[in-house]
Amino acid sequence: IAKEVAKLLEMKAQLGTDEGKHKFVLKTPKGTRDFGPKEMAIRERAFKAIISCFKRHGAEVIDTPVFELKETLTGKYGEDSKLIYDLKDQGGELLSLRYDLTVPFARYLAMNKITNIKRYHIAKVYRRDNPAMTRGRYREFYQCDFDIAGQFDPMIPDAECLKIVHEILSDLQLGDFVIKVNDRRILDGMFAVCGVPDSKFRTICSSVDKLDKVPWEEVRSEMVAEKGLSPEAADLIGEYVQLHGGLDLIERLLQDPKLSQNKVAKEGLGDMKLLFEYLTLFGITGKISFDLSLARGLDYYTGVIFEAVLLQQENEHAEEPLSVGSVAGGGRYDGLVGMFDPKGRKVPCVGVSIGIERIFSILEQRLEASEEKIRTTETQVLVASAQKKLLEERLKLISELWDAGIKAEMLYKKNPKLLNQLQYCEDTGIPLVAIVGEQELKDGVVKLRIVATREEVNVRRESLVEEIRIRTSQC
Amino acid sequence: IAKEVAKLLEMKAQLGTDEGKHKFVLKTPKGTRDFGPKEMAIRERAFKAIISCFKRHGAEVIDTPVFELKETLTGKYGEDSKLIYDLKDQGGELLSLRYDLTVPFARYLAMNKITNIKRYHIAKVYRRDNPAMTRGRYREFYQCDFDIAGQFDPMIPDAECLKIVHEILSDLQLGDFVIKVNDRRILDGMFAVCGVPDSKFRTICSSVDKLDKVPWEEVRSEMVAEKGLSPEAADLIGEYVQLHGGLDLIERLLQDPKLSQNKVAKEGLGDMKLLFEYLTLFGITGKISFDLSLARGLDYYTGVIFEAVLLQQENEHAEEPLSVGSVAGGGRYDGLVGMFDPKGRKVPCVGVSIGIERIFSILEQRLEASEEKIRTTETQVLVASAQKKLLEERLKLISELWDAGIKAEMLYKKNPKLLNQLQYCEDTGIPLVAIVGEQELKDGVVKLRIVATREEVNVRRESLVEEIRIRTSQC
Repeated sequence: IAKEVAKLLEMKAQLGTDEGKHKFVLKTPKGTRDFGPKEMAIRERAFKAIISCFKRHGAEVIDTPVFELKETLTGKYGEDSKLIYDLKDQGGELLSLRYDLTVPFARYLAMNKITNIKRYHIAKVYRRDNPAMTRGRYREFYQCDFDIAGQFDPMIPDAECLKIVHEILSDLQLGDFVIKVNDRRILDGMFAVCGVPDSKFRTICSSVDKLDKVPWEEVRSEMVAEKGLSPEAADLIGEYVQLHGGLDLIERLLQDPKLSQNKVAKEGLGDMKLLFEYLTLFGITGKISFDLSLARGLDYYTGVIFEAVLLQQENEHAEEPLSVGSVAGGGRYDGLVGMFDPKGRKVPCVGVSIGIERIFSILEQRLEASEEKIRTTETQVLVASAQKKLLEERLKLISELWDAGIKAEMLYKKNPKLLNQLQYCEDTGIPLVAIVGEQELKDGVVKLRIVATREEVNVRRESLVEEIRIRTSQC
Repeated sequence: IAKEVAKLLEMKAQLGTDEGKHKFVLKTPKGTRDFGPKEMAIRERAFKAIISCFKRHGAEVIDTPVFELKETLTGKYGEDSKLIYDLKDQGGELLSLRYDLTVPFARYLAMNKITNIKRYHIAKVYRRDNPAMTRGRYREFYQCDFDIAGQFDPMIPDAECLKIVHEILSDLQLGDFVIKVNDRRILDGMFAVCGVPDSKFRTICSSVDKLDKVPWEEVRSEMVAEKGLSPEAADLIGEYVQLHGGLDLIERLLQDPKLSQNKVAKEGLGDMKLLFEYLTLFGITGKISFDLSLARGLDYYTGVIFEAVLLQQENEHAEEPLSVGSVAGGGRYDGLVGMFDPKGRKVPCVGVSIGIERIFSILEQRLEASEEKIRTTETQVLVASAQKKLLEERLKLISELWDAGIKAEMLYKKNPKLLNQLQYCEDTGIPLVAIVGEQELKDGVVKLRIVATREEVNVRRESLVEEIRIRTSQC
């Protein structure tokens, strides 16, 4: 009997698998999405604006593998390390998908002993986070990073990173924005003078980082109840993190009886002042806010940190504009490359990462709201025929056009109807139709139809390429 | 004592981990590589040629996630399935890295119920293969895919795919090449008339696929000894797979007493004839070889298959040019989308994949051999100063240039030496230097230096942008 039961169970298991196959779920993995032609057209527009800004600032471009040795990522991301995707151990090295582009960049610098580079890198990164796809939060998403590595005079590269954020957000016309700036040294000094023990700096910093999403009361209770901070220290922090302003606030804090006694805070405030001087020369301080509540989650920052948020004027009478979320962030990380170098040699770095997914979401919504019809191909001309049995003539003509560099399509039918061919142009936005017919072949001409005006002209075959170029040069 | 031992072991284990940290290996995962700025410049050149060809043929572009549900990839790759990278089960869905772009494309079509599209997709794919990086074989590598999906008249899209391969390989000037063409239906018909049992078609096809790397004797012995084929059947196959030619060979096989009796072979040969007619109209039959030994490894092909190989004329007196490996391949896969559709609805597809890594290798080697110095930035002008204390003036000027869309850099030093600034331009190929000095500031001009000729001209500040544009318009 036991044997029979085992057999039956085995059969059931097999059936189970077969059933599973039929119940196959047709989807992309959780937190990911396909980009169809329309989404790609929007994506390429945004990339174009970003890349041309990076190139305007003289950046080179690099690329790194999508996965790294697991140990390359270990100990770089603090509390967020649990969100790293690991690969299955199939024999050989233990691998993880990259979590950002900064750690691979630091690994690249250390590995190649590069001490001086300005580069950008646009690629997908992976986080096992809770996706919120309508708000542009995915598990697979693009980052567009620009970083300056090298030993330079203070705050000059840092100021350029902020200029870049300002240029890109202005260029993309995403509406009003503000770039919050702070410095890890100011935060650390502030923690010290508020009575936070050294060992708790990073974890209290993580709590402060939540202030853009969670009210102070909740953050305070996390600090006290979960992280064991004294209520007095928490309250002192609470006073500082409310502060935001410009050069005036920096000057005030430089006179602050407690902060001014702290060495690192003083250094940070001095550099912040210098940064604001440079930003004034760039003419962008109007969008910059020195904000003591800005902390940034990642462990590796050592100096200036910043984050750009879009503002939404939902109500004209509202006191403060509503923030709709971060679209760029970055900062200085002078110790990260040293973590990879066998001798611990440091390469100071500062960089910015553009969070392009939220920008895509906004551009997509805007396009949908507008009447604009976005083209997904660049085809200049459709090669068509008015009568039957002209497939060979169409193939000959389209081949001539391709070889001359003209973007051309034809319908893959032996005898397509002229109406269907014209309709295809209307649907896809192809501006011209090159029509071959018996008579045209005899006369050595091609009938060129302008789709928008329905105008038709006979063009000599040898002038066709030139005529198409002229008529589509504005496209 | 037991307690003490446990304690010591724990301490040892901790030391072990610490030691491990210090022995940290600074490398990219096996079979992968970084692309530095120089490699990226080469890569972008190749991509540009390929993308402009795809766009010339009216393709849209899509993108899919780097990983898919594991079951999406199951049962699509035959013997190669063991090379798929799986992700670790961290709770949630079981995922695998994509092995090619064809299966994700088919999944995308089925999921979105698309029955008609011409698209390209350029992205990295992953195979746990034995890497041979000097020959351009990696575990992470780019594929550039162009596919046409839809129910059309026979061989028109198939011919376009071959035209595309021809255009790209010609455009990249990789030297002489040949595109081998065959049809799975001809292979299956051939297997049938040679006496291969139906159940062995796919596995014998895999053996034939090795003929470009392994001599016939070895392939024959694999068929007979490992796969249990009769020696007679193997020898009959051996005769067919030696054949290659053009229209003449197709005509001959259409008269072949055995093959012509087989329904699928006859269909395949009829379509092959039609394909050659279209390729004649495209004027590319000179590089096409109908080759009965071409089999292609993947399971999903159902009709025409093809593969482009570069030829190396190593010895002028050699009888046959030496093949240096496949750089593109593809074929028709009419059943793949149906495998994903809940109701099994088929969408006929044909496509081509350009194996760009081998092309990179060749372009890299060629560039190294040449004297050409490749630029890795597009910077038009360096903003420099001749005296000290002009950092603020440099920052003001460079900001003006950036805002006007000029690609500009400056050294991140407070007081850089003019010589160092000029040297930087020599090293990086920046063609112009805009020099600010006390006198120039007073006069309202900027000294513009042309690096190549060492010529210097004073340009009025308000004309500087225009002057830079004119002088770099040929770059």
